Amino acid sequence: MKLKVKDMDIATGGVKVVLLNEKDAEKLDLHHNDRVIVRKGKKFTTAVLDIAESRKAVPIGKIGLFEEVLDALNAKHGVVVDLGTGKKPISVSYIKKKLDGKELTYHETYEVMKDIVKDDLTDIELTSYITANYVHGMSLKEILDSTKAMKDTGSVIDIKNGIIADIHGIGGVPGNRTTPIVVPILVAAGLKVPKTSSRAITSPSGTADTMDVFCKVALPIPKLKKIIKKVGGFIVWGGAINLAPADDKIIKIEHPIEIDAEGQMIASIMAKKASVNATHLLLEMSVGKSAKIHSRQEAKHLTWYFDRISKSLGIKILYHIDDGSQPIGNGIGPALEARDVLWVLKNDKRAPEDLRKKSLKMAAMMLEFTGKAKKGKGMQMATQLLEGGAAYKTFVKIIKAQGGCEIKADKIEIGDCTRIFRARKSGRITHVDNKVTTKIGRMAGAPSDHGSGIYLHVHKGYKVKKGDKLFTIYSHNKEELAYAIDCANRLKLMEIKKSLH
Amino acid sequence: MKLKVKDMDIATGGVKVVLLNEKDAEKLDLHHNDRVIVRKGKKFTTAVLDIAESRKAVPIGKIGLFEEVLDALNAKHGVVVDLGTGKKPISVSYIKKKLDGKELTYHETYEVMKDIVKDDLTDIELTSYITANYVHGMSLKEILDSTKAMKDTGSVIDIKNGIIADIHGIGGVPGNRTTPIVVPILVAAGLKVPKTSSRAITSPSGTADTMDVFCKVALPIPKLKKIIKKVGGFIVWGGAINLAPADDKIIKIEHPIEIDAEGQMIASIMAKKASVNATHLLLEMSVGKSAKIHSRQEAKHLTWYFDRISKSLGIKILYHIDDGSQPIGNGIGPALEARDVLWVLKNDKRAPEDLRKKSLKMAAMMLEFTGKAKKGKGMQMATQLLEGGAAYKTFVKIIKAQGGCEIKADKIEIGDCTRIFRARKSGRITHVDNKVTTKIGRMAGAPSDHGSGIYLHVHKGYKVKKGDKLFTIYSHNKEELAYAIDCANRLKLMEIKKSLH
Repeated sequence: MKLKVKDMDIATGGVKVVLLNEKDAEKLDLHHNDRVIVRKGKKFTTAVLDIAESRKAVPIGKIGLFEEVLDALNAKHGVVVDLGTGKKPISVSYIKKKLDGKELTYHETYEVMKDIVKDDLTDIELTSYITANYVHGMSLKEILDSTKAMKDTGSVIDIKNGIIADIHGIGGVPGNRTTPIVVPILVAAGLKVPKTSSRAITSPSGTADTMDVFCKVALPIPKLKKIIKKVGGFIVWGGAINLAPADDKIIKIEHPIEIDAEGQMIASIMAKKASVNATHLLLEMSVGKSAKIHSRQEAKHLTWYFDRISKSLGIKILYHIDDGSQPIGNGIGPALEARDVLWVLKNDKRAPEDLRKKSLKMAAMMLEFTGKAKKGKGMQMATQLLEGGAAYKTFVKIIKAQGGCEIKADKIEIGDCTRIFRARKSGRITHVDNKVTTKIGRMAGAPSDHGSGIYLHVHKGYKVKKGDKLFTIYSHNKEELAYAIDCANRLKLMEIKKSLH
Repeated sequence: MKLKVKDMDIATGGVKVVLLNEKDAEKLDLHHNDRVIVRKGKKFTTAVLDIAESRKAVPIGKIGLFEEVLDALNAKHGVVVDLGTGKKPISVSYIKKKLDGKELTYHETYEVMKDIVKDDLTDIELTSYITANYVHGMSLKEILDSTKAMKDTGSVIDIKNGIIADIHGIGGVPGNRTTPIVVPILVAAGLKVPKTSSRAITSPSGTADTMDVFCKVALPIPKLKKIIKKVGGFIVWGGAINLAPADDKIIKIEHPIEIDAEGQMIASIMAKKASVNATHLLLEMSVGKSAKIHSRQEAKHLTWYFDRISKSLGIKILYHIDDGSQPIGNGIGPALEARDVLWVLKNDKRAPEDLRKKSLKMAAMMLEFTGKAKKGKGMQMATQLLEGGAAYKTFVKIIKAQGGCEIKADKIEIGDCTRIFRARKSGRITHVDNKVTTKIGRMAGAPSDHGSGIYLHVHKGYKVKKGDKLFTIYSHNKEELAYAIDCANRLKLMEIKKSLH
């Protein structure tokens, strides 16, 4: 059927959609969500049909095209296109199979992932796949297949030869910015570390947001390969280089219904590690009531899967299961964390001791794991590389290679609207809440305003006197500071118990 | 945050959506699919956030409003509205609960249904609910709760006093237009029959499409109540009167992923019967390989649920489990079926015998079930009402009450583009395929072109000679006829086996 194009002047940001008047849809026996083929000359594309009930949106005889379809056909408002019936991607039948509780093959999983990446599935289809995996669970084989399929439908950074070290933290703990400290230590020791990190989705800062303070984090793959050759390591935003891109699209569906399917999480992490050809992986799991992993049993349960998936991928894996009951470091928010990182790397006395210790511990483990240090000598080597300044020098090389400049910690711009919260009684800090910290940090403007966030003057276990500083909120504007203050007044970021003596 | 309205000039046809530039969304810490509250003066509404990546779609400082939101706020292009964060409906947490395999209470199910009807759930949320029910299944209590909740979130036709008879067929069998014959017989016998039917979704005609040929099928509830009082029965399209409206919205999601959850189907049917205060229900199940119910065991399995749900609702139920291996009647398509119906009601010799017999059987069962006829005397009574002309007279009363006129069977307009298919060999018809009949009928233009469809000259078991007519395709235009012919040439509508003698 010939139809005149109406430019809808809007992108869906996902699946290709065309809009037809309900009368035309009825005539063509087409329904909401059917696949159609739109042709213009030799160009054609498959799209999903949406039906307009009013003539105002799309009159009879016209077809509303969203940006993605206009681009695919190189079509403009007013031109004539030909509309025919299309077919659902074959992956929809595999989704149905999984809904019916049957295990998918590698080929079937690959088809699903490919169509997710190509934006060929509707929200209904994609949600069905995700909920089917969530409800039925994924077998070990399915997790492995998903890992491979996610990797195979994205880009890879194919660094060849030798040991390639990678680290990953399963989060939920604010601060915890060990990566920009551990990576330079490892690189200074001669390891190759192609580190891709995420930006914050719901937290006040991700490693990529903190690195943003120092240098570019979105760099093309050829450039990254050069940096690995020249410097030995980088710390960039994975989202910019299309590693396992299905992951982001899956998270976009999981997030609003608040599900975090275990198998899917394992596959996402491992696909990204496989995409950079990692040979050795240190997986850090922070365990705590307000962290992502709630108990040591849960962490142990996960290692069972990680062991098997990494073995199949030829990746050696080591775990650091750690306390995640409170934030790590003092600064929370991109710039405040960046300052903490610099203080640790420069051996400044203002460096948060917990962040320093945790980073050294992780670096030490990795040095021994990769054979760079002898058993029992990792901590010594890591400490030397940090205290001797080699780690800092390497960090500067990395940020320069990523287009940044050396910067002094005190020159890092922090929000100038501040409010100090002080202890209302004397006693001991018994709890610092991750979730409340996150909430206040975001209210203050982090991560989009780099300088916004929270600075913790004390941690769990510290003794305080009435009137002592507990934490300071930083923001770039008064309005957001007011929101954050209001939030801090309502929620308990810290708990203080009176000492008995 | 104050934002200037951009009229997106398009309706979503479902959930309320607003569109924000990604920079503004970041500033407000809002994500795709978050709920927001939009205020204009004293008016406000909750909507779902979509994020525009380009300034072309929505510039910074503006907010794109779709029709539904503009209407809710009575807002126009260029006015200023205030945007704040909103909350997800509480029903989303119940959906999550069901996803996690827990049984929902009546209250929780009601909340979900209420939000489905109000278009307050996104496709992601609604799909999660449907797939969770599909994968985990629904307990008997959940099916009953869904039935009640679907009824309680829609309109009801509260006819009081006495017996209210209803019939329902679980379909998949083309033709099978018993309703317009059974209802007049029952009404002629003095029963009240408030019959609501559906339009075809994937078949060449639904009962409402066939009735469309005679009279109006979309009538308001007060009018329907008057008809029941005056005439005793009606046959209308249920979609027009908002009975159990959640059903349509659930089907819209089930359809593209091709799931038909058993519990959901039972709840949908029974909610509609409860909405008309039915006291006696005859449920017809057609069993056949190409019908919706594939085996007698499957039918029996369903009766277990129907027995229990109808008992809880105070509805007496009776089953007619019948052969659904081939189409019923000769005409397939609204007008061709309407002609068959008239021929049966007028005792014309061209009346299809299978349709006549089945209708009489069902009417007889119902007459005995409701006590209108003594045990064993139902068939006699039904036959008398039909052959004596009382049923036809009542049918005319019904269509007149619904705004139609008496019409002769030969005056019903049938498509004038035709093609007769003849037997290529002599033998016996061993199979008439429901799905192929459906496909060809739709290709020919049914149900949107009332006169299009297929006329079957023979049925399973008939003997034919080479050159005998098998079926005729009718269409209103040559193009669609050509599609249907092509389809008939490729697929086997009928199978003929040579007779051995």
